[in-house]
Amino acid sequence: MKSVLLLSGGLDSTTLLYDLLSTGDEVLALSIFYGQKHQKEISAAKEIATHARVKHIIKEISGIFGESALTSDSLEVPDGHYTDLSMKQTVVPNRNMIFLSIALSLAISEKFDRVAYAAHAGDHTIYPDCRPEFVEAMKNVFPLSDWFKVTLYAPYVNLSKKEICKKGLALGAPLDLTWSCYKGGEAHCGKCGTCVERKEAFLEIIDPTIYLA
Amino acid sequence: MKSVLLLSGGLDSTTLLYDLLSTGDEVLALSIFYGQKHQKEISAAKEIATHARVKHIIKEISGIFGESALTSDSLEVPDGHYTDLSMKQTVVPNRNMIFLSIALSLAISEKFDRVAYAAHAGDHTIYPDCRPEFVEAMKNVFPLSDWFKVTLYAPYVNLSKKEICKKGLALGAPLDLTWSCYKGGEAHCGKCGTCVERKEAFLEIIDPTIYLA
Repeated sequence: MKSVLLLSGGLDSTTLLYDLLSTGDEVLALSIFYGQKHQKEISAAKEIATHARVKHIIKEISGIFGESALTSDSLEVPDGHYTDLSMKQTVVPNRNMIFLSIALSLAISEKFDRVAYAAHAGDHTIYPDCRPEFVEAMKNVFPLSDWFKVTLYAPYVNLSKKEICKKGLALGAPLDLTWSCYKGGEAHCGKCGTCVERKEAFLEIIDPTIYLA
Repeated sequence: MKSVLLLSGGLDSTTLLYDLLSTGDEVLALSIFYGQKHQKEISAAKEIATHARVKHIIKEISGIFGESALTSDSLEVPDGHYTDLSMKQTVVPNRNMIFLSIALSLAISEKFDRVAYAAHAGDHTIYPDCRPEFVEAMKNVFPLSDWFKVTLYAPYVNLSKKEICKKGLALGAPLDLTWSCYKGGEAHCGKCGTCVERKEAFLEIIDPTIYLA
Protein backbone atom coordinates (compact mmCIF):
# COMPACT_ATOMS: atom_id res chain seq x y z
CA MET A 1 0.00 0.00 0.00
CA LYS A 2 0.94 3.65 -0.23
CA SER A 3 0.79 5.49 3.10
CA VAL A 4 1.17 9.12 4.08
CA LEU A 5 2.62 8.92 7.60
CA LEU A 6 2.37 11.72 10.16
CA LEU A 7 5.97 11.64 11.38
CA SER A 8 6.48 13.81 14.48
CA GLY A 9 10.02 12.66 15.09
CA GLY A 10 9.01 10.87 18.31
CA LEU A 11 9.07 7.22 19.34
CA ASP A 12 5.59 6.22 18.20
CA SER A 13 5.56 7.56 14.66
CA THR A 14 9.16 6.41 14.08
CA THR A 15 8.20 2.89 15.11
CA LEU A 16 5.16 3.07 12.83
CA LEU A 17 7.40 4.17 9.96
CA TYR A 18 9.54 1.05 10.30
CA ASP A 19 6.42 -1.04 10.86
CA LEU A 20 4.97 0.17 7.54
CA LEU A 21 8.24 -0.33 5.70
CA SER A 22 8.52 -3.88 7.09
CA THR A 23 5.24 -4.76 5.36
CA GLY A 24 6.41 -3.28 2.05
CA ASP A 25 4.47 0.00 2.16
CA GLU A 26 5.58 2.97 0.10
CA VAL A 27 5.73 5.76 2.68
CA LEU A 28 5.54 9.52 2.29
CA ALA A 29 6.44 11.10 5.65
CA LEU A 30 4.76 14.37 6.66
CA SER A 31 5.86 16.60 9.53
CA ILE A 32 4.02 19.71 10.59
CA PHE A 33 5.61 22.75 12.15
CA TYR A 34 2.90 24.45 14.20
CA GLY A 35 5.08 26.82 16.19
CA GLN A 36 6.11 24.23 18.77
CA LYS A 37 9.05 25.20 20.99
CA HIS A 38 10.51 21.75 20.47
CA GLN A 39 11.40 22.32 16.83
CA LYS A 40 14.04 19.67 17.41
CA GLU A 41 11.40 17.06 16.71
CA ILE A 42 11.19 18.33 13.12
CA SER A 43 14.97 17.96 12.72
CA ALA A 44 14.70 14.51 14.26
CA ALA A 45 11.92 13.61 11.79
CA LYS A 46 14.16 14.75 8.94
CA GLU A 47 17.07 12.61 10.13
CA ILE A 48 14.80 9.61 10.63
CA ALA A 49 13.26 9.93 7.16
CA THR A 50 16.77 10.12 5.66
CA HIS A 51 17.79 7.06 7.68
CA ALA A 52 14.70 5.20 6.41
CA ARG A 53 15.19 6.54 2.86
CA VAL A 54 11.62 7.81 2.52
CA LYS A 55 10.46 11.11 1.05
CA HIS A 56 9.80 13.72 3.72
CA ILE A 57 7.59 16.80 3.47
CA ILE A 58 7.35 19.56 6.08
CA LYS A 59 4.27 21.83 6.10
CA GLU A 60 4.03 24.95 8.23
CA ILE A 61 0.93 26.18 10.00
CA SER A 62 2.43 28.27 12.80
CA GLY A 63 0.01 30.92 14.00
CA ILE A 64 -3.00 28.62 13.76
CA PHE A 65 -3.22 27.63 17.41
CA GLY A 66 -4.30 29.49 20.51
CA GLU A 67 -2.53 29.45 23.86
CA SER A 68 -0.70 26.27 24.80
CA ALA A 69 2.46 25.74 26.81
CA LEU A 70 3.88 24.00 23.73
CA THR A 71 3.59 27.03 21.49
CA SER A 72 3.34 30.15 23.64
CA ASP A 73 6.40 31.96 25.00
CA SER A 74 4.35 33.28 27.91
CA LEU A 75 3.53 29.79 29.21
CA GLU A 76 6.21 27.49 30.59
CA VAL A 77 6.25 23.76 29.82
CA PRO A 78 5.33 22.11 33.15
CA ASP A 79 7.42 19.35 34.75
CA GLY A 80 5.64 16.23 35.97
CA HIS A 81 3.62 13.21 34.94
CA TYR A 82 1.01 13.19 32.19
CA THR A 83 -1.64 12.46 34.82
CA ASP A 84 -0.89 15.77 36.64
CA LEU A 85 -3.48 18.50 36.27
CA SER A 86 -0.81 21.00 35.16
CA MET A 87 -0.13 18.90 32.07
CA LYS A 88 -3.39 20.13 30.54
CA GLN A 89 -1.49 23.26 29.54
CA THR A 90 0.27 21.13 26.96
CA VAL A 91 -2.95 20.34 25.11
CA VAL A 92 -2.99 22.04 21.71
CA PRO A 93 -6.71 22.27 20.85
CA ASN A 94 -7.75 19.91 18.07
CA ARG A 95 -4.18 19.38 16.90
CA ASN A 96 -4.75 15.84 15.71
CA MET A 97 -7.79 16.63 13.57
CA ILE A 98 -5.88 19.47 11.91
CA PHE A 99 -2.83 17.27 11.30
CA LEU A 100 -4.96 14.40 10.00
CA SER A 101 -6.91 16.68 7.67
CA ILE A 102 -3.67 18.09 6.20
CA ALA A 103 -2.30 14.55 5.79
CA LEU A 104 -5.54 13.53 4.09
CA SER A 105 -5.27 16.47 1.69
CA LEU A 106 -1.75 15.35 0.77
CA ALA A 107 -2.85 11.73 0.35
CA ILE A 108 -5.66 12.80 -2.02
CA SER A 109 -3.28 14.99 -4.03
CA GLU A 110 -0.62 12.28 -4.30
CA LYS A 111 -3.12 9.43 -4.73
CA PHE A 112 -1.94 7.54 -1.64
CA ASP A 113 -4.32 4.88 -0.23
CA ARG A 114 -4.13 5.72 3.42
CA VAL A 115 -2.97 8.04 6.17
CA ALA A 116 -1.12 6.39 9.04
CA TYR A 117 -0.77 7.92 12.48
CA ALA A 118 0.53 6.60 15.73
CA ALA A 119 -1.98 7.68 18.41
CA HIS A 120 -1.47 5.32 21.34
CA ALA A 121 -3.14 4.24 24.57
CA GLY A 122 -0.88 6.26 26.88
CA ASP A 123 -2.02 9.52 25.34
CA HIS A 124 -5.68 9.15 26.32
CA THR A 125 -5.41 10.48 29.85
CA ILE A 126 -5.10 14.09 28.79
CA TYR A 127 -5.35 14.14 25.01
CA PRO A 128 -8.98 13.47 24.02
CA ASP A 129 -8.06 13.35 20.33
CA CYS A 130 -5.98 10.21 20.83
CA ARG A 131 -8.93 8.14 22.15
CA PRO A 132 -10.20 5.17 20.14
CA GLU A 133 -13.66 6.80 19.77
CA PHE A 134 -12.08 9.88 18.17
CA VAL A 135 -10.02 7.69 15.84
CA GLU A 136 -13.12 5.65 14.89
CA ALA A 137 -15.12 8.79 14.07
CA MET A 138 -12.22 10.09 11.96
CA LYS A 139 -12.07 6.74 10.14
CA ASN A 140 -15.71 7.25 9.15
CA VAL A 141 -15.24 10.76 7.81
CA PHE A 142 -12.02 10.06 5.87
CA PRO A 143 -13.46 8.35 2.75
CA LEU A 144 -16.28 10.90 2.47
CA SER A 145 -14.05 13.90 1.93
CA ASP A 146 -13.16 13.18 -1.69
CA TRP A 147 -14.13 10.97 -4.64
CA PHE A 148 -10.67 9.40 -4.25
CA LYS A 149 -11.06 7.23 -1.14
CA VAL A 150 -8.36 7.36 1.51
CA THR A 151 -8.54 5.34 4.72
CA LEU A 152 -7.15 6.14 8.15
CA TYR A 153 -4.76 3.62 9.72
CA ALA A 154 -4.01 3.91 13.44
CA PRO A 155 -2.74 0.51 14.55
CA TYR A 156 -1.29 1.60 17.92
CA VAL A 157 -4.44 3.06 19.43
CA ASN A 158 -4.62 0.31 22.05
CA LEU A 159 -0.87 -0.19 22.59
CA SER A 160 1.08 1.28 25.51
CA LYS A 161 4.22 3.34 24.96
CA LYS A 162 6.26 0.46 26.36
CA GLU A 163 4.78 -1.97 23.83
CA ILE A 164 5.55 0.50 21.04
CA CYS A 165 9.16 0.87 22.26
CA LYS A 166 9.61 -2.89 22.26
CA LYS A 167 8.15 -3.11 18.77
CA GLY A 168 10.39 -0.29 17.57
CA LEU A 169 13.51 -1.98 18.88
CA ALA A 170 12.45 -5.31 17.38
CA LEU A 171 11.95 -3.61 14.01
CA GLY A 172 15.39 -1.99 14.19
CA ALA A 173 13.90 1.53 14.22
CA PRO A 174 16.52 4.18 15.10
CA LEU A 175 14.90 5.18 18.40
CA ASP A 176 18.12 6.96 19.39
CA LEU A 177 17.36 9.53 16.67
CA THR A 178 13.85 10.28 18.02
CA TRP A 179 12.97 13.39 20.00
CA SER A 180 10.24 13.66 22.66
CA CYS A 181 11.08 16.52 25.08
CA TYR A 182 8.63 19.44 24.93
CA LYS A 183 11.32 21.91 25.99
CA GLY A 184 13.52 21.33 22.98
CA GLY A 185 16.85 21.95 24.77
CA GLU A 186 20.26 20.42 24.06
CA ALA A 187 19.28 17.05 25.54
CA HIS A 188 15.98 15.61 26.82
CA CYS A 189 15.15 17.48 30.07
CA GLY A 190 13.96 14.28 31.77
CA LYS A 191 11.28 16.14 33.74
CA CYS A 192 8.45 17.21 31.41
CA GLY A 193 5.42 14.99 30.77
CA THR A 194 6.70 13.44 27.60
CA CYS A 195 10.20 12.81 29.04
CA VAL A 196 8.69 11.12 32.08
CA GLU A 197 6.58 8.94 29.82
CA ARG A 198 9.60 8.18 27.62
CA LYS A 199 11.66 7.10 30.64
CA GLU A 200 8.84 4.90 31.93
CA ALA A 201 8.43 3.29 28.53
CA PHE A 202 12.10 2.40 28.40
CA LEU A 203 12.14 0.91 31.92
CA GLU A 204 13.43 -2.64 31.64
CA ILE A 205 14.44 -1.86 28.04
CA ILE A 206 17.77 -0.35 26.97
CA ASP A 207 17.10 3.42 26.84
CA PRO A 208 19.31 5.13 24.22
CA THR A 209 18.38 8.66 25.45
CA ILE A 210 20.68 11.16 27.15
CA TYR A 211 18.63 12.96 29.85
CA LEU A 212 19.67 16.11 31.72
CA ALA A 213 17.87 14.93 34.88
CA MET B 1 -25.30 30.59 21.59
CA LYS B 2 -21.72 31.45 20.75
CA SER B 3 -20.72 30.47 17.21
CA VAL B 4 -17.43 30.50 15.36
CA LEU B 5 -18.47 31.11 11.74
CA LEU B 6 -16.34 30.20 8.73
CA LEU B 7 -16.78 33.40 6.73
CA SER B 8 -15.39 33.12 3.21
CA GLY B 9 -16.75 36.46 2.08
CA GLY B 10 -19.19 34.78 -0.32
CA LEU B 11 -22.99 34.73 -0.47
CA ASP B 12 -23.62 31.65 1.64
CA SER B 13 -21.49 32.40 4.69
CA THR B 14 -22.56 36.06 4.66
CA THR B 15 -26.20 35.01 4.72
CA LEU B 16 -25.43 32.57 7.54
CA LEU B 17 -23.74 35.37 9.49
CA TYR B 18 -26.91 37.47 9.40
CA ASP B 19 -29.00 34.38 10.09
CA LEU B 20 -27.01 33.69 13.28
CA LEU B 21 -27.16 37.33 14.37
CA SER B 22 -30.93 37.38 13.82
CA THR B 23 -31.33 34.63 16.42
CA GLY B 24 -29.13 36.47 18.93
CA ASP B 25 -25.92 34.46 18.51
CA GLU B 26 -22.58 35.90 19.52
CA VAL B 27 -20.47 35.37 16.38
CA LEU B 28 -16.72 35.15 15.93
CA ALA B 29 -15.98 35.20 12.20
CA LEU B 30 -13.00 33.24 10.87
CA SER B 31 -11.52 33.57 7.38
CA ILE B 32 -8.70 31.43 6.10
CA PHE B 33 -6.14 32.52 3.55
CA TYR B 34 -4.89 29.36 1.85
CA GLY B 35 -3.09 30.94 -1.08
CA GLN B 36 -6.24 31.43 -3.17
CA LYS B 37 -5.87 33.75 -6.15
CA HIS B 38 -9.14 35.40 -5.24
CA GLN B 39 -7.78 37.10 -2.12
CA LYS B 40 -10.53 39.61 -2.66
CA GLU B 41 -12.86 37.28 -0.80
CA ILE B 42 -10.79 37.87 2.35
CA SER B 43 -11.13 41.66 1.95
CA ALA B 44 -14.85 41.14 1.36
CA ALA B 45 -15.10 39.05 4.55
CA LYS B 46 -13.36 41.84 6.46
CA GLU B 47 -15.79 44.46 5.16
CA ILE B 48 -18.79 42.24 5.88
CA ALA B 49 -17.64 41.54 9.45
CA THR B 50 -17.18 45.27 10.01
CA HIS B 51 -20.65 45.90 8.57
CA ALA B 52 -22.10 43.26 10.92
CA ARG B 53 -19.98 44.48 13.87
CA VAL B 54 -18.58 41.07 14.70
CA LYS B 55 -15.02 40.16 15.62
CA HIS B 56 -13.07 38.83 12.62
CA ILE B 57 -9.97 36.64 12.67
CA ILE B 58 -7.87 35.72 9.63
CA LYS B 59 -5.60 32.65 9.80
CA GLU B 60 -3.06 31.82 7.14
CA ILE B 61 -2.19 28.36 5.88
CA SER B 62 -0.83 29.10 2.41
CA GLY B 63 1.50 26.39 1.22
CA ILE B 64 -0.62 23.59 2.67
CA PHE B 65 -2.41 22.54 -0.49
CA GLY B 66 -1.27 20.73 -3.59
CA GLU B 67 -2.12 21.70 -7.17
CA SER B 68 -5.49 23.35 -7.76
CA ALA B 69 -6.53 25.99 -10.27
CA LEU B 70 -7.56 28.13 -7.29
CA THR B 71 -4.08 28.25 -5.79
CA SER B 72 -1.53 27.44 -8.50
CA ASP B 73 -0.14 30.03 -10.90
CA SER B 74 0.51 27.33 -13.48
CA LEU B 75 -3.17 26.34 -13.71
CA GLU B 76 -5.78 28.69 -15.11
CA VAL B 77 -9.24 29.04 -13.56
CA PRO B 78 -11.59 27.42 -16.11
CA ASP B 79 -14.68 29.16 -17.46
CA GLY B 80 -17.97 27.27 -17.49
CA HIS B 81 -20.61 25.64 -15.36
CA TYR B 82 -19.94 23.71 -12.13
CA THR B 83 -21.20 20.56 -13.84
CA ASP B 84 -18.43 20.78 -16.50
CA LEU B 85 -15.61 18.26 -16.17
CA SER B 86 -12.98 21.03 -16.33
CA MET B 87 -14.33 22.46 -13.09
CA LYS B 88 -12.71 19.61 -11.15
CA GLN B 89 -9.48 21.60 -11.37
CA THR B 90 -10.99 23.97 -8.84
CA VAL B 91 -11.28 21.29 -6.16
CA VAL B 92 -8.84 21.96 -3.33
CA PRO B 93 -8.34 18.54 -1.71
CA ASN B 94 -9.97 18.24 1.71
CA ARG B 95 -10.30 22.00 2.11
CA ASN B 96 -13.45 21.84 4.18
CA MET B 97 -12.12 19.36 6.73
CA ILE B 98 -9.01 21.51 7.19
CA PHE B 99 -11.09 24.69 7.57
CA LEU B 100 -13.52 23.00 9.96
CA SER B 101 -10.73 21.58 12.09
CA ILE B 102 -9.09 25.01 12.40
CA ALA B 103 -12.47 26.56 13.30
CA LEU B 104 -13.00 23.84 15.89
CA SER B 105 -9.58 24.55 17.41
CA LEU B 106 -10.54 28.22 17.72
CA ALA B 107 -13.94 27.37 19.23
CA ILE B 108 -12.28 25.15 21.86
CA SER B 109 -9.72 27.85 22.71
CA GLU B 110 -12.35 30.59 22.96
CA LYS B 111 -14.98 28.35 24.61
CA PHE B 112 -17.57 28.84 21.85
CA ASP B 113 -20.43 26.29 21.68
CA ARG B 114 -20.47 25.61 17.99
CA VAL B 115 -18.87 26.02 14.60
CA ALA B 116 -21.18 27.22 11.84
CA TYR B 117 -20.50 26.72 8.15
CA ALA B 118 -22.56 27.28 5.06
CA ALA B 119 -22.07 24.19 2.87
CA HIS B 120 -25.04 24.07 0.54
CA ALA B 121 -26.80 21.73 -1.88
CA GLY B 122 -25.44 23.33 -5.05
CA ASP B 123 -21.87 22.49 -4.09
CA HIS B 124 -22.37 18.71 -4.07
CA THR B 125 -21.91 18.12 -7.78
CA ILE B 126 -18.15 18.54 -7.69
CA TYR B 127 -17.23 19.17 -4.06
CA PRO B 128 -17.59 15.90 -2.15
CA ASP B 129 -16.86 17.64 1.17
CA CYS B 130 -20.09 19.64 0.94
CA ARG B 131 -22.33 16.55 0.85
CA PRO B 132 -24.74 15.87 3.73
CA GLU B 133 -22.98 12.55 4.51
CA PHE B 134 -19.65 14.34 4.94
CA VAL B 135 -21.29 16.95 7.16
CA GLU B 136 -22.99 14.23 9.25
CA ALA B 137 -19.69 12.37 9.78
CA MET B 138 -18.00 15.63 10.79
CA LYS B 139 -20.83 16.31 13.25
CA ASN B 140 -20.04 12.98 14.90
CA VAL B 141 -16.32 13.62 15.27
CA PHE B 142 -16.63 17.23 16.51
CA PRO B 143 -17.54 16.61 20.17
CA LEU B 144 -14.93 13.85 20.51
CA SER B 145 -11.93 16.02 19.82
CA ASP B 146 -11.81 17.74 23.20
CA TRP B 147 -13.28 17.56 26.71
CA PHE B 148 -14.96 20.88 25.89
CA LYS B 149 -17.78 19.87 23.57
CA VAL B 150 -18.31 21.88 20.41
CA THR B 151 -21.04 21.04 17.88
CA LEU B 152 -21.09 21.58 14.14
CA TYR B 153 -23.95 23.62 12.68
CA ALA B 154 -24.55 23.47 8.92
CA PRO B 155 -28.15 24.58 8.36
CA TYR B 156 -27.89 25.17 4.57
CA VAL B 157 -26.74 21.71 3.56
CA ASN B 158 -30.03 21.01 1.75
CA LEU B 159 -30.70 24.55 0.47
CA SER B 160 -29.99 25.71 -3.07
CA LYS B 161 -27.95 28.83 -3.77
CA LYS B 162 -31.12 30.58 -4.90
CA GLU B 163 -32.86 29.80 -1.61
CA ILE B 164 -29.85 31.12 0.29
CA CYS B 165 -29.83 34.32 -1.80
CA LYS B 166 -33.50 34.89 -1.03
CA LYS B 167 -32.89 34.29 2.66
CA GLY B 168 -29.92 36.67 2.63
CA LEU B 169 -31.94 39.45 1.04
CA ALA B 170 -34.81 38.87 3.49
CA LEU B 171 -32.36 39.11 6.39
CA GLY B 172 -30.90 42.35 5.05
CA ALA B 173 -27.46 40.79 4.57
CA PRO B 174 -25.14 43.05 2.52
CA LEU B 175 -24.90 40.69 -0.46
CA ASP B 176 -23.46 43.52 -2.56
CA LEU B 177 -20.32 43.32 -0.40
CA THR B 178 -19.81 39.60 -1.03
CA TRP B 179 -17.22 38.18 -3.41
CA SER B 180 -17.51 34.90 -5.36
CA CYS B 181 -15.32 35.05 -8.51
CA TYR B 182 -12.36 32.61 -8.47
CA LYS B 183 -10.29 34.90 -10.67
CA GLY B 184 -10.22 37.76 -8.19
CA GLY B 185 -10.09 40.55 -10.80
CA GLU B 186 -11.49 44.10 -10.56
CA ALA B 187 -15.09 42.90 -10.95
CA HIS B 188 -16.72 39.44 -11.09
CA CYS B 189 -15.63 37.82 -14.40
CA GLY B 190 -19.10 36.37 -14.98
CA LYS B 191 -17.67 33.25 -16.66
CA CYS B 192 -16.03 31.00 -14.04
CA GLY B 193 -17.99 28.27 -12.23
CA THR B 194 -18.80 30.30 -9.17
CA CYS B 195 -19.81 33.40 -11.20
CA VAL B 196 -22.13 31.28 -13.35
CA GLU B 197 -23.66 29.82 -10.19
CA ARG B 198 -23.98 33.29 -8.66
CA LYS B 199 -25.77 34.62 -11.74
CA GLU B 200 -28.14 31.65 -11.79
CA ALA B 201 -28.92 32.09 -8.11
CA PHE B 202 -29.83 35.71 -8.64
CA LEU B 203 -32.10 34.97 -11.65
CA GLU B 204 -35.52 36.40 -10.84
CA ILE B 205 -33.96 38.18 -7.86
CA ILE B 206 -32.32 41.61 -7.98
CA ASP B 207 -28.61 40.90 -8.54
CA PRO B 208 -26.39 43.58 -6.98
CA THR B 209 -23.24 42.30 -8.72
CA ILE B 210 -21.23 44.06 -11.45
CA TYR B 211 -20.05 41.39 -13.94
CA LEU B 212 -17.46 41.88 -16.68
CA ALA B 213 -19.28 39.42 -18.95
